[in-house]
Amino acid sequence: MLPERLTRLVHLFARLPGVGEKTAARFVLFLVAAGPETSTALGEALVALRDAVRPCDRCGHVAEVGADGHAVCAICADPKRDARLMCVVGRVQDLVAIERSGAMRGRYFVLGRLLSPLEGVGPDELPLARLRERIAADGVEEVVVATPPSVDGEATALLLARELARAGLRVSRIASGVPHGGDLEFADPITLGRALEGRKGLG
Amino acid sequence: MLPERLTRLVHLFARLPGVGEKTAARFVLFLVAAGPETSTALGEALVALRDAVRPCDRCGHVAEVGADGHAVCAICADPKRDARLMCVVGRVQDLVAIERSGAMRGRYFVLGRLLSPLEGVGPDELPLARLRERIAADGVEEVVVATPPSVDGEATALLLARELARAGLRVSRIASGVPHGGDLEFADPITLGRALEGRKGLG
Repeated sequence: MLPERLTRLVHLFARLPGVGEKTAARFVLFLVAAGPETSTALGEALVALRDAVRPCDRCGHVAEVGADGHAVCAICADPKRDARLMCVVGRVQDLVAIERSGAMRGRYFVLGRLLSPLEGVGPDELPLARLRERIAADGVEEVVVATPPSVDGEATALLLARELARAGLRVSRIASGVPHGGDLEFADPITLGRALEGRKGLG
Repeated sequence: MLPERLTRLVHLFARLPGVGEKTAARFVLFLVAAGPETSTALGEALVALRDAVRPCDRCGHVAEVGADGHAVCAICADPKRDARLMCVVGRVQDLVAIERSGAMRGRYFVLGRLLSPLEGVGPDELPLARLRERIAADGVEEVVVATPPSVDGEATALLLARELARAGLRVSRIASGVPHGGDLEFADPITLGRALEGRKGLG
């Protein structure tokens, strides 16, 4: 139905997360109809990524590559951040969400993946050696584990707690409960159970 | 939260249909994590579109630009197509869907937009002159209007029927009714009304 060149482009778009062949075809047809300016701007920006951006050498957040060939993100480069506090997250998206909250004054470490027995991701697939190295280099004293409150996220948190507490670090886990503005009526039983377990004294 | 270069890329992705800033950011973070190969392949394919693909000079379907600078799609270039029969559609996506059905043996004409009084799209914004030209050049005798069964699609169909019937052409409209495999119980009243109006004698 489409010229070979466009079919190839559809396949490339379909590699993006959450994009199937149909959505990818919509993107491609939109770009052809929009004229060459839009597709060229997007294409050039993507090609320019090659040597300019990669995961931060220290924490795994996205970072621009400097003239010296190193990539250090804005957070790791910020001397006002508390180096003794580290927040471990699964994905860069989670880091960005936490940064937006403004509640984290330390630095981060992005695991890139979570323990997942079902998908065959074991402890050896997690960057634990790099994490320990980072903790030693920065003089970290406290680690907040901010993996998601899912089965894989909890399993990862337990593994990290065991590994890091052994090294004499204070390890904590972000709270899980009913979200701000959430309706108790529609909260699932596990969330409600956690909200009750995690209750705090008032006054 | 992201380097300037990535924020710009997020904005470019967010121009795609159905993609908001959040989805665009997910694409960008995925691409950084996936490494330069994926983003470069997509980027180069997009840049290569510039002089290689544009709407078909005849029908508006997507077409590769030939060595002579003309763009004629595979359907318009196919001599086995019945030049006397033309199917008018709103968008290339609709053309592709009809082609997939295998039920159209004529050629196409892509309007690119529909009449939309609410959005201020009047008859002057439709490529009616180009359509008439195309009809004359191909010796078209019958036009099937395959705009969608929406308010805008119906308005466009009525306009085309009036304009083209005046020129002595046979004009028809695709049938509207309960879709194949559809459940009468869940069909909306307008669809059911159309299915009844459009009933055909059996045997």
